[in-house]
Amino acid sequence: MSAPEASGAGGGLGASASAGAGDPEAEALLRSVRFGSDGLVTAVAVDSVDGSVLMLAHMDRESLGLTLKTGVMTYWSRSRKRLWVKGETSGHTQRVVSASIDCDGDALLFRVVQEGAACHEGFRSCFFRLRRGGTWEIQGRPLAKPD
Amino acid sequence: MSAPEASGAGGGLGASASAGAGDPEAEALLRSVRFGSDGLVTAVAVDSVDGSVLMLAHMDRESLGLTLKTGVMTYWSRSRKRLWVKGETSGHTQRVVSASIDCDGDALLFRVVQEGAACHEGFRSCFFRLRRGGTWEIQGRPLAKPD
Repeated sequence: MSAPEASGAGGGLGASASAGAGDPEAEALLRSVRFGSDGLVTAVAVDSVDGSVLMLAHMDRESLGLTLKTGVMTYWSRSRKRLWVKGETSGHTQRVVSASIDCDGDALLFRVVQEGAACHEGFRSCFFRLRRGGTWEIQGRPLAKPD
Repeated sequence: MSAPEASGAGGGLGASASAGAGDPEAEALLRSVRFGSDGLVTAVAVDSVDGSVLMLAHMDRESLGLTLKTGVMTYWSRSRKRLWVKGETSGHTQRVVSASIDCDGDALLFRVVQEGAACHEGFRSCFFRLRRGGTWEIQGRPLAKPD
């Protein structure tokens, strides 16, 4: 796993003044978030229209701060090891409608307005393979070309 | 983080014959799952009735195999470092209706029949705190006493 910053309240790179992007509300909200030992928290994005789960990804302190401040879903890409404004190249952005935190503070749920496809493979949702017996069967068709 | 087993296909304790609980379908499904370096994959449980997100937790190879075989949501508890049949003590079980896997194979989505409260704090969903400005505000009331 990527390890962009140390874990724990007040620790790591992400605890700098820019973590909450200088936004007092974002800073306050971040205090309740329990980042893992890899400095990341899990974020689930659901469609604000029908509540369906679109994708699951991760945020570090900085990307979560930016998401809370800007209202534009911004993740930490574990594969590319950098901030990732969802849709920055594809145009398939996610605008935040609401944000919730779970009981343990280590997972976040965002209702979003999804432009086009959430999945880099062009499907509306990343969860497009459904169990059928012993296989994962593709459901539906891509809305867009893969990124 | 807990590290119940090594990661990677065929690696670790969980790759034993019992990983898929001896079930050929479960064994086949497990081959598409990418467990993290901690041996875990993220699982999201949503309510089969209204699609709302109930909770997010983790599964190792064995607990996922058991979930796929038995149809009863079984997690790996990172805090208790052991298999955790959801509801085993509270009675708040989750029966699997369907299972999906995401594009990267590192997250799973289960539609479940939830008995009572998914959250150990007694709320139907673990995501019972909604952002209001700079605070996370509790929504609704617990259905049950905390576990």
